[in-house]
Amino acid sequence: MERLHLVSREARARDTIVQVGKVKIGGGHKAYIAGPCSVEDETQIREIAQAIQDSAQILRGGAFKPRTSPYSFQGLGEAGLAYLKEAGRQVGLPVVTEVMSEAEVEMVADAVDMLQIGARNMQNYALLKKVGAQSKPVLLKRGVAATLEELLLSAEYILAAGNSQVVLCERGIRTFSQTFTRNTLDLSAVPILKQISHLPVIVDPSHGSGDWNLIEPLAKAAMAAGADGLMIEVHSRPDEALSDGPQSLKPEKYRSLIKKLNRLVAVLEEEKQ
Amino acid sequence: MERLHLVSREARARDTIVQVGKVKIGGGHKAYIAGPCSVEDETQIREIAQAIQDSAQILRGGAFKPRTSPYSFQGLGEAGLAYLKEAGRQVGLPVVTEVMSEAEVEMVADAVDMLQIGARNMQNYALLKKVGAQSKPVLLKRGVAATLEELLLSAEYILAAGNSQVVLCERGIRTFSQTFTRNTLDLSAVPILKQISHLPVIVDPSHGSGDWNLIEPLAKAAMAAGADGLMIEVHSRPDEALSDGPQSLKPEKYRSLIKKLNRLVAVLEEEKQ
Amino acid sequence: MERLHLVSREARARDTIVQVGKVKIGGGHKAYIAGPCSVEDETQIREIAQAIQDSAQILRGGAFKPRTSPYSFQGLGEAGLAYLKEAGRQVGLPVVTEVMSEAEVEMVADAVDMLQIGARNMQNYALLKKVGAQSKPVLLKRGVAATLEELLLSAEYILAAGNSQVVLCERGIRTFSQTFTRNTLDLSAVPILKQISHLPVIVDPSHGSGDWNLIEPLAKAAMAAGADGLMIEVHSRPDEALSDGPQSLKPEKYRSLIKKLNRLVAVLEEEKQ
Amino acid sequence: MERLHLVSREARARDTIVQVGKVKIGGGHKAYIAGPCSVEDETQIREIAQAIQDSAQILRGGAFKPRTSPYSFQGLGEAGLAYLKEAGRQVGLPVVTEVMSEAEVEMVADAVDMLQIGARNMQNYALLKKVGAQSKPVLLKRGVAATLEELLLSAEYILAAGNSQVVLCERGIRTFSQTFTRNTLDLSAVPILKQISHLPVIVDPSHGSGDWNLIEPLAKAAMAAGADGLMIEVHSRPDEALSDGPQSLKPEKYRSLIKKLNRLVAVLEEEKQ
Repeated sequence: MERLHLVSREARARDTIVQVGKVKIGGGHKAYIAGPCSVEDETQIREIAQAIQDSAQILRGGAFKPRTSPYSFQGLGEAGLAYLKEAGRQVGLPVVTEVMSEAEVEMVADAVDMLQIGARNMQNYALLKKVGAQSKPVLLKRGVAATLEELLLSAEYILAAGNSQVVLCERGIRTFSQTFTRNTLDLSAVPILKQISHLPVIVDPSHGSGDWNLIEPLAKAAMAAGADGLMIEVHSRPDEALSDGPQSLKPEKYRSLIKKLNRLVAVLEEEKQ
Repeated sequence: MERLHLVSREARARDTIVQVGKVKIGGGHKAYIAGPCSVEDETQIREIAQAIQDSAQILRGGAFKPRTSPYSFQGLGEAGLAYLKEAGRQVGLPVVTEVMSEAEVEMVADAVDMLQIGARNMQNYALLKKVGAQSKPVLLKRGVAATLEELLLSAEYILAAGNSQVVLCERGIRTFSQTFTRNTLDLSAVPILKQISHLPVIVDPSHGSGDWNLIEPLAKAAMAAGADGLMIEVHSRPDEALSDGPQSLKPEKYRSLIKKLNRLVAVLEEEKQ
Repeated sequence: MERLHLVSREARARDTIVQVGKVKIGGGHKAYIAGPCSVEDETQIREIAQAIQDSAQILRGGAFKPRTSPYSFQGLGEAGLAYLKEAGRQVGLPVVTEVMSEAEVEMVADAVDMLQIGARNMQNYALLKKVGAQSKPVLLKRGVAATLEELLLSAEYILAAGNSQVVLCERGIRTFSQTFTRNTLDLSAVPILKQISHLPVIVDPSHGSGDWNLIEPLAKAAMAAGADGLMIEVHSRPDEALSDGPQSLKPEKYRSLIKKLNRLVAVLEEEKQ
Repeated sequence: MERLHLVSREARARDTIVQVGKVKIGGGHKAYIAGPCSVEDETQIREIAQAIQDSAQILRGGAFKPRTSPYSFQGLGEAGLAYLKEAGRQVGLPVVTEVMSEAEVEMVADAVDMLQIGARNMQNYALLKKVGAQSKPVLLKRGVAATLEELLLSAEYILAAGNSQVVLCERGIRTFSQTFTRNTLDLSAVPILKQISHLPVIVDPSHGSGDWNLIEPLAKAAMAAGADGLMIEVHSRPDEALSDGPQSLKPEKYRSLIKKLNRLVAVLEEEKQ
């Protein structure tokens, strides 16, 4: 393994606590991030924000979408950013969105409370250096074929550039097993990353499975494995979603899931004492 | 997907409950299987059996060991079988062991309460037909590169041969991610297998991780994902184990883990009501 | 890596030459194995044998077929064996077929000139020991998720049991890449296996691709990478084949391919001098 | 499969011929690209350029290096670019180098004859659009976990932005098989990509294996599979290389390899007529 200077457990006596607006992640603080894959229009994101405001700590929504095909919906861009920001403001939740281009880092950082680096860009070092040089916290998703060491070394690029506010996100890896799931959620990543690094670790069961039917069991499993939070895609009308509908929960299902997770986490926390 | 006749959810209105001695698995019944990778001598298996008797429902121990190299310890064979049977009798637990050869199926079935088909033999159809033609229940482990459909079709071989008492076992798949774990435990397999089939599903976090440090978080995650039980390797002196020491829990750690799992499962069960 | 005693390059100064009937493989001798996936009836195997007799050194044909589903065509069994043997006798080619069961090793060894161990049984150690204890040469196929070390250690089981006549076969591994091919043919396996072991290595581009369109380029590539031969599925009427039709070449295509390969191999051999 | 508009075989009756300086790739034109992983100083790149000038058509050398760790050698940057350009000018070869940052596309395009998009950036869509909007040809490497469809859709981003001069490069995928090779070279990608698209396809056996010992057999295999060229790392003193020494050929080995490849290609071309 290559040397990990800044993100290794040895580098800090205590867990890093990442602050997103008024929300804390890590060091015992759990946070749930929820919202649609893409911001589709002003009403859509506002409705979803209202529906999840009591069951999530952070609102997500994509304005710039990395799509495999250049002909797929690419997101609303700056307009989407404005709708997301306003929806978050109305319900009092900080917001997170993906940034895909070096040239847009500053603009996106001005609009939102947390920047997401997507799986496809986990080793886009020019982008990592850019988000490391600004002051908003960063959500770094694991690449579909990235080892845990590579994930931590990508986080190291951000920390080395001056930004210590990084949350890691396991979101499924690409394996031979593709009949029932888009990816294989690697939950062993959670305890391993927490053993060797001081950074918070969350899990995205939506991309990790690609099937809303699997989100509840995998969300519970992720928290039981020790995750510091979850990122879950929620959409009021999954059938009409412009992207990732099949893996989105309806708001009422999401709220019901969070209630169950809260009870589960309470038991898990009791045991630690 | 190829047609699944006997193991598909449609084939039975209710979950199959597999009976191992007096122990039930499936249909709401959870079972923990524990014991050493290999039966090493009469004292070793008896000591471990005594140490776990209150925290496990079934005792495991390998007498015939499938080893990658012909020069590795191959198990004690029939003597190991006798020690295992006697250790189980003394503590009142049914026993399970792997059978590797068609020629040994009857002998092994006479000695133990459940036959295990290992990951390497998941598609050894001659062996599957043989265990399908005898009356003891079968624990069928997923091959390291087997799809869930292939696992179910291997189970189908056993059911089609006349034996409906089959428990499926997820034990990790082989992926690019090999630095920190021997295999990648695929916990999405648990809810998927339970959705499409009526057979009970357990998880082996010992082989699934290869590292005793990871067993507790992965065991909790497996139960949270809906598993009907666990198979965990336990050894009194892991450092001296003839096989798989690094992934074995000491008995006191195992007992402590089961207490935590019992509380966790209680909360998970409450929610269902 | 575990120690390789018998199959390692150090164990023998010279390449092993495996003798199948009057045909030699290894140590500079190239051999092409061809024939249908399954023996379907007496006429089918005889026609194919006649069509390839001048372009192949060994005739293949499955009598006992390992099928993922118990409801798929399982082969003609002993009758298939007799048809294969007779077809080989008529055209003067030695024959190879798969053996799946310990109980059938002797019967199959009596009927054919070479025993094949399929990919699913590469780590069926009871079967490996059995084929190691008889005198016919063995064609050992790599498992879909087997490392090269595991393949060699499985060969070691056969050699350690007394049979030194083993040919290794690369036939594609299971990876995330599944849209256009059934498996990913790992041609780097050829030079690596030849560097670290003294056993002959052949390649199966039919299973390695699953698509007859890809057989010609992959067959050429395999020979260019240094393979000692090829195993190619040939069927007179691929559309009506009971198994693996889409990856089977028609006889005229096969014969045309072999002519091209002969020229290619001649150039490759010249360069060595 | 998602729709491929511009890169699909249907989109053009003829193979695309990509022009790099005076060199052609595709449509029957083969090209070998060679040079060091990194430009290390003025002398190093000049010496290598002189050593390969008669055996390569294009000179490669990294000035901006994507490194997993932020503490590894990151390349000489603009100085490296100047050394590469001058070395190419002296020996009369066009030059190719990787561009990693949107902000540097224009500067790099001014200095070199072909822009390389590395495997880590294959789905960096902001970068793909940028290189699509300038006029120099692009060498697009397949990501380590990219399907062939994803590779073609990334090429589609470049074509859709206005640049039709794209060469695809297979350079090994990430699989479970990691003991002897860094990656698994997927040579079936060559005939598949050429069947479904009109773009030229080359192969990089250096990254594809990670071991200079394997370059010769894999280079031959790649050409036999139908590749339009190769990219091979060459270094005068591999032991002292600042990056990728173990997978670099010495110039004399490289020249000897090219002679063999020329004879091989001559035979392969004859057969087509």
